[in-house]
Amino acid sequence: MYFSSSPLGVALASTLLAAVAQAQTYQRFGTCPTLGCVIPPDQQDFLAGQYFDIRVEIHAPINGSEATNGVPDENFSLTIAKAGGRAKTVSEYFESEEPELETWDFSYYEDLFAEDADTPSVVNVASKAWRRVALYEPGDYVATLTYNGTEQTVAHWHVRDIEHVRKTKNVLLFIGDGMTTNMITAARLIGHKSINGRYQSTMAMDKFPVLGHQMTHSIDTFITDSANSATALYSGHKSTVNALGVYADTSPDPFDDPKFESVAEIFHRMYGGHIGLVSTAFIADATPAAFTAHTRDRGEYGAVIDSMIHGTINYTWTNWDGPDVIFGGGAENFCSPEVGGETYMDLDYYQIFADAGYNLVYNATALEATPSDEKTLGIFSVGNMAKWLDRNVYKDNLNGNEAAPNCEGGDANNQPGLKEMTLKAIDILNSRAGDKGWFIMSEAASVDKMMHVLDYDRALGELLELDDTIKHSIEHLKELDVFKETLILVTADHGHGFDVFGSVDTHYLKAQDNDRDKRRAVGQYEKSGHSQYINTGELRYSDSNFPSNWDPRYTLAQGFGANPDRVEDYQVNKDGPRVPATNITGFDEDDYFANPEDSPNGGGITYNGTLPVSADQGVHSLTDVTVFAMGPCQELFGGVYNSIDVFFKMAECLGLSDVPDKGHGGHGHGWGGKGKGRNWGKVGGDGKGYEHYGEGKPRYGGKGGWNQGGRKREFKKRNGYH
Amino acid sequence: MYFSSSPLGVALASTLLAAVAQAQTYQRFGTCPTLGCVIPPDQQDFLAGQYFDIRVEIHAPINGSEATNGVPDENFSLTIAKAGGRAKTVSEYFESEEPELETWDFSYYEDLFAEDADTPSVVNVASKAWRRVALYEPGDYVATLTYNGTEQTVAHWHVRDIEHVRKTKNVLLFIGDGMTTNMITAARLIGHKSINGRYQSTMAMDKFPVLGHQMTHSIDTFITDSANSATALYSGHKSTVNALGVYADTSPDPFDDPKFESVAEIFHRMYGGHIGLVSTAFIADATPAAFTAHTRDRGEYGAVIDSMIHGTINYTWTNWDGPDVIFGGGAENFCSPEVGGETYMDLDYYQIFADAGYNLVYNATALEATPSDEKTLGIFSVGNMAKWLDRNVYKDNLNGNEAAPNCEGGDANNQPGLKEMTLKAIDILNSRAGDKGWFIMSEAASVDKMMHVLDYDRALGELLELDDTIKHSIEHLKELDVFKETLILVTADHGHGFDVFGSVDTHYLKAQDNDRDKRRAVGQYEKSGHSQYINTGELRYSDSNFPSNWDPRYTLAQGFGANPDRVEDYQVNKDGPRVPATNITGFDEDDYFANPEDSPNGGGITYNGTLPVSADQGVHSLTDVTVFAMGPCQELFGGVYNSIDVFFKMAECLGLSDVPDKGHGGHGHGWGGKGKGRNWGKVGGDGKGYEHYGEGKPRYGGKGGWNQGGRKREFKKRNGYH
Repeated sequence: MYFSSSPLGVALASTLLAAVAQAQTYQRFGTCPTLGCVIPPDQQDFLAGQYFDIRVEIHAPINGSEATNGVPDENFSLTIAKAGGRAKTVSEYFESEEPELETWDFSYYEDLFAEDADTPSVVNVASKAWRRVALYEPGDYVATLTYNGTEQTVAHWHVRDIEHVRKTKNVLLFIGDGMTTNMITAARLIGHKSINGRYQSTMAMDKFPVLGHQMTHSIDTFITDSANSATALYSGHKSTVNALGVYADTSPDPFDDPKFESVAEIFHRMYGGHIGLVSTAFIADATPAAFTAHTRDRGEYGAVIDSMIHGTINYTWTNWDGPDVIFGGGAENFCSPEVGGETYMDLDYYQIFADAGYNLVYNATALEATPSDEKTLGIFSVGNMAKWLDRNVYKDNLNGNEAAPNCEGGDANNQPGLKEMTLKAIDILNSRAGDKGWFIMSEAASVDKMMHVLDYDRALGELLELDDTIKHSIEHLKELDVFKETLILVTADHGHGFDVFGSVDTHYLKAQDNDRDKRRAVGQYEKSGHSQYINTGELRYSDSNFPSNWDPRYTLAQGFGANPDRVEDYQVNKDGPRVPATNITGFDEDDYFANPEDSPNGGGITYNGTLPVSADQGVHSLTDVTVFAMGPCQELFGGVYNSIDVFFKMAECLGLSDVPDKGHGGHGHGWGGKGKGRNWGKVGGDGKGYEHYGEGKPRYGGKGGWNQGGRKREFKKRNGYH
Repeated sequence: MYFSSSPLGVALASTLLAAVAQAQTYQRFGTCPTLGCVIPPDQQDFLAGQYFDIRVEIHAPINGSEATNGVPDENFSLTIAKAGGRAKTVSEYFESEEPELETWDFSYYEDLFAEDADTPSVVNVASKAWRRVALYEPGDYVATLTYNGTEQTVAHWHVRDIEHVRKTKNVLLFIGDGMTTNMITAARLIGHKSINGRYQSTMAMDKFPVLGHQMTHSIDTFITDSANSATALYSGHKSTVNALGVYADTSPDPFDDPKFESVAEIFHRMYGGHIGLVSTAFIADATPAAFTAHTRDRGEYGAVIDSMIHGTINYTWTNWDGPDVIFGGGAENFCSPEVGGETYMDLDYYQIFADAGYNLVYNATALEATPSDEKTLGIFSVGNMAKWLDRNVYKDNLNGNEAAPNCEGGDANNQPGLKEMTLKAIDILNSRAGDKGWFIMSEAASVDKMMHVLDYDRALGELLELDDTIKHSIEHLKELDVFKETLILVTADHGHGFDVFGSVDTHYLKAQDNDRDKRRAVGQYEKSGHSQYINTGELRYSDSNFPSNWDPRYTLAQGFGANPDRVEDYQVNKDGPRVPATNITGFDEDDYFANPEDSPNGGGITYNGTLPVSADQGVHSLTDVTVFAMGPCQELFGGVYNSIDVFFKMAECLGLSDVPDKGHGGHGHGWGGKGKGRNWGKVGGDGKGYEHYGEGKPRYGGKGGWNQGGRKREFKKRNGYH
């Protein structure tokens, strides 16, 4: 408009290609800047005794900026040495057989110019993988890959020196998906009354004694998705966007990527600890999935559900016999294909869970009535569960949702909320776990999902529901007399760049006839005023802190750095979750414009987006997110740290560090105790009888599309949510 | 564009007027929803012994939605009672004379419709003020105003029960103005190298053991400015936008509003503690000003500077003899008017400070060489000081700035940074304070100022300079062997709704010829990549963590919910701070458009703003901000609390709570000790010889414009920064 741009086009593109090896956003392989790749890569930390896989890849690009002769060296070797010790080959070190050589190829674009020109770079790969190894002795290790004769890639690994003392019996981990400090502040404003600058009540989170910040970035990019951020929180290993419980490799198979154990797997293996998974998302979604799934592709929802009950069956791995509780949405990954289910191996997973002894419940009434001494699967809707705002205020929106969990097209209009699910989960876990203790993850998934679609009201409603759930969970733990032996954590997996910057006089906004005049409705600073959400109106929700008026004249001026084209009327969307951007007839399906239906109250302001036009919603942001801690070990969680440290701190508190005994008689600490033999540094040699040993049959052997060369995978997306 | 708006216009406006008493953004008087007003208002907390003023106002609107007969009741009475005690008149309670009745009128608009129609509501006021009182006994108090016969307004006050034990000798308080967690995360990304998801170094802030969040909102609006947020941090009393060290009243005089004592004033009064003020802003700006200034109008810069050396001279107040150190910009409020100074009473404040024994320095070289045993005033530029990025990378921008601190039009091209100023301040305070201890406030002011103009690079540069200053200050305190007796705090006064949501391929962006195609340059999630700021380039800044390349191909996709019209090219502004929006010839001066010069690198994307078109820059946001704490009392600063609690925690740590003795022999605790007599609850009766007693001569008696009726004040703005 005010500038003249210089279309440099193809000429610029070609001169740039020479430099794209340094390009940071289009990566050949994010964890490997050289042609010899060790996974786990450099700078990784491990919990003592935590199982993991090792993979080596040798890359031979056949074209592009790093072109070689295209023949990857197959005579590479990998050695491992503990600091000060002798280097041994990896097979020698772990007393395992030398694995078979694997080969494949993949392709990628070096930058956007290359993508526009459709000139992919193709890479041939030679690889080996060592499965289920573990390091027990704390300290530094060096893994050295030698290839192409004298080329070397060195990976520094570190086993943390964490004492094996169990300090908590239980862990209750709340995750507000996508929840930032900014959102907590906004939720407090609309949910709690303030008089002359003093809140008359505050959030349950505000009352936690210890506060930390954790860094959410991926291993290879600075913006994460929920799959690899959940992986980091649960396993102490950062990974790549879309990966669950594995480091990404470049192979086409989404199930052969190098795995590492999650806190749930270790806790269950070491202590027989009981696990509960609760989410308002479809339950195969990333945040619940990352406890048991080990796949490069979070979109393999059917396999994710299978992993929840069977664990990892295609390779030797931790034994697993299913959580005590799974509560959430996502019926489509359980229902028989006859009624439209999209399940693993086309099986009926309701039947599989029932056959495994699970009690099945499908609505809020049944959930409340169900006994607390049985393993329970509660699936309450197809897809993501209904939002707090629709369940409690705009209830008509549940009619016609066709989300009944039997997948037969009826409505799911009797869904529980996060609070009801979590309190029941606590009851069940507490009655079943006995001295072994329990670990429950409870996720407010739609903070994220509603922020993605810029539906600030619903997102803040979900956040307030999470806070209400926390409040009632604490009370319930006290009633059950287990509060003092339960570590309670509240955190998030990443942020969205949301904040509130004033108020909006929605009456004035509507009364103006052009966008520039409408903007005057935004009240800044001294004109931002008080919150009208809590001071007026008639809505009351028992004893809880929620807005009493979701549709006041003066609303919040709020928003995002990251957004698609949109129309902002800054009023609640009474008809259900917002759809900010849509395709316009006659344009490409990846060319989104502001949704003309997205100002149901009339008179919104139209904005062009900051994201690629292929984006129909907002995206995640960089910001560190908060960790609130209360209970045993709370003192570990103060200050600023990396997301992986949340895992190490939880593991420390649960006594999961399997360090060698120091001559004082085994690991009898904490709840439940244990005694076992162990061979340090030996594959599978922990003296327990594992059902699966050695390389099992790949679960997804020849599935169409996956074994083809080329890396331009189409990861499945569900509503495009990350 | 896609919607049809309904211009309801005047008809809607008139129907709405009946309801505007509930309107939250256009307030008659924010702390007083009724017609009888007590200040301090309901819900206020006090430190025991903290001086404050009381004001009562009776309002009689003559028109508008609350119209009365227009005659305010002059026979009102105010009583005070301690919980369980007998109510006494305020004059009786504090053994003071009954003050004289004051009257005035003011006007305001009830909402935007009224402002458009220029139909102000006018209010007649009757008022009394009781000056410099204090409450000493911890507990609850009730102030009851009776007016119009039987109408009552009740204010609940609370004196916190804080032990009088001094736990720290010194306090070093860093303020990153406008700094949020999101910005710290972004600064870490561009200033610290990461390998496979592990930072190889981290921020100094990241190493603080204790983390808290504080709520920044005003007493009467949810978005604050820096004046009243600094007031809350320093004094434990939230106030109104633009107010420093006072509760706002409605009178036209900006110097008669009810005051309260700041932490610096109390510390200096009780212990003779030494004070240092350091800022990269003009030093009369809000954050340094709020320690000594007591005015409704932060724009009274000359008077602010006078308060720094003389304290409050128009009313009985705490004795004050000036900080040991004042370092910053803002020469214009010191220079003689003969060379363009804008000073209090047209005096030469350089001369006044010199006469008071201050050593004066004007540039970085002189600062370094100046002795550490003298009171020192260092003023290094007209206006705000140069930014780190311009001082260190784009140094040519300092040429021609005409900011020489003698105000004679030369360049200020030898300015120190925040680090140099803060380390020298520590030296001076430490050598001068002896056993009395010191309190230094060091402000990175231009985090805020550069975020206001959407100059993300400069803002993050300032943040990294702050972090570097913290790092070196900790080292220096250790060298001086006072680290263990110094509480170090890092916090902010408010946020800006900033976050990073991806990377930008600036080459690709420039090569496209329309805005929609340009947006494809934004890399989300797996395409966000690594930071290129730290991995490439040649810039090196001694031992510190700053970007080595400020102008990489792949930059950050970042931004704001709140912004004026703008052009984003997502590249560093090499010519100096960004000017995002300008007037366009032929339009109103309050009608801002994207600055056509604001894409110096070419090819930016044009966005319409989210703020009123009168905004030429971004605005503050709601988010809670971080408190980092290290040192004595650090444990007080964990968790989530209100901004005022920062004051109470500092006061607790410094032993400033003047609670009655409990029979064990006076207040001899901590460093320096003290012994004094005190009459609880008595005006001015603390047994010390104050220079000023009784109602002094109003400093600004008949200044033009201020004693006229009407409240539509034009507060002075400097570059429009908040």
